[in-house]
Amino acid sequence: MRIELPFLGKTKNSFIDQGIKEYCSRLKHYSSLHIHVLKTKMKKGWNEEQQRCEEGRVLLASLPQATVKVVLDAGGGQLSSEAFAALISRFEQDGRKHIAFLIGGPTGHATEVLDSADHLISFSKMTFTHDMVRLFLVEQLYRAYTIKAGEKYHK
Amino acid sequence: MRIELPFLGKTKNSFIDQGIKEYCSRLKHYSSLHIHVLKTKMKKGWNEEQQRCEEGRVLLASLPQATVKVVLDAGGGQLSSEAFAALISRFEQDGRKHIAFLIGGPTGHATEVLDSADHLISFSKMTFTHDMVRLFLVEQLYRAYTIKAGEKYHK
Repeated sequence: MRIELPFLGKTKNSFIDQGIKEYCSRLKHYSSLHIHVLKTKMKKGWNEEQQRCEEGRVLLASLPQATVKVVLDAGGGQLSSEAFAALISRFEQDGRKHIAFLIGGPTGHATEVLDSADHLISFSKMTFTHDMVRLFLVEQLYRAYTIKAGEKYHK
Repeated sequence: MRIELPFLGKTKNSFIDQGIKEYCSRLKHYSSLHIHVLKTKMKKGWNEEQQRCEEGRVLLASLPQATVKVVLDAGGGQLSSEAFAALISRFEQDGRKHIAFLIGGPTGHATEVLDSADHLISFSKMTFTHDMVRLFLVEQLYRAYTIKAGEKYHK
């Protein structure tokens, strides 16, 4: 099973980029991981919805066929780290080949992305930057694999 | 009003330490901030509860008199970033001099700390490392002040 992490644009904060690299390098012991940094167009005069549509189109187009889509969105349900680990185990048991975790742009996800979601997940009631959500995600993925492996990891 | 951030031990991950420093330096434009890095004893043979008690004692002893205690704990309620900003505004309006945000040790907070909490807050249903919770906290404090000031900040 390969984890697909399509990121809209580069990670801006260098410390977050460093953290993402650290967790990704640890994750590689457990799982195949593919980060794609995607470029989106920004046209003058586009409103927020048009920008979201473009971002959504680019996100979805980046995914291999038959990818399970886990969409991170404020409207999603929250899971404990253990339930998140169990969800990943289920994907593996079901023989899924590609699982993508989709983080939206500055104004959230396009309707097209939300409609195509297999799972809709929220990390917190609080709002975080894109960059920060990337860091949370890779940390929770790493935590999930250590939970699955029954290994000890810091609380 | 001064924000007190008593941290149990140093931040281990260098990228998180860098992130905390960045947000703290931004926060200083809005508020007085005091990070105390606290040392706790660890005695051989202590069980988890004894360790928590020691950590709780050190945390509480570090605070100035009449400090409002906001305790971060899995059992707390979640707030949106806007509600978190409103809570901080209320402390200011009430003329509070010191507000502390308390992050527990590896096995959580001592009963003494939980019992003394003025507010009990949880950031997420997921479990994060101490270090990561520190980073969330300073980012959300910074976000709270930009919300209060009506300023634009990345989503």
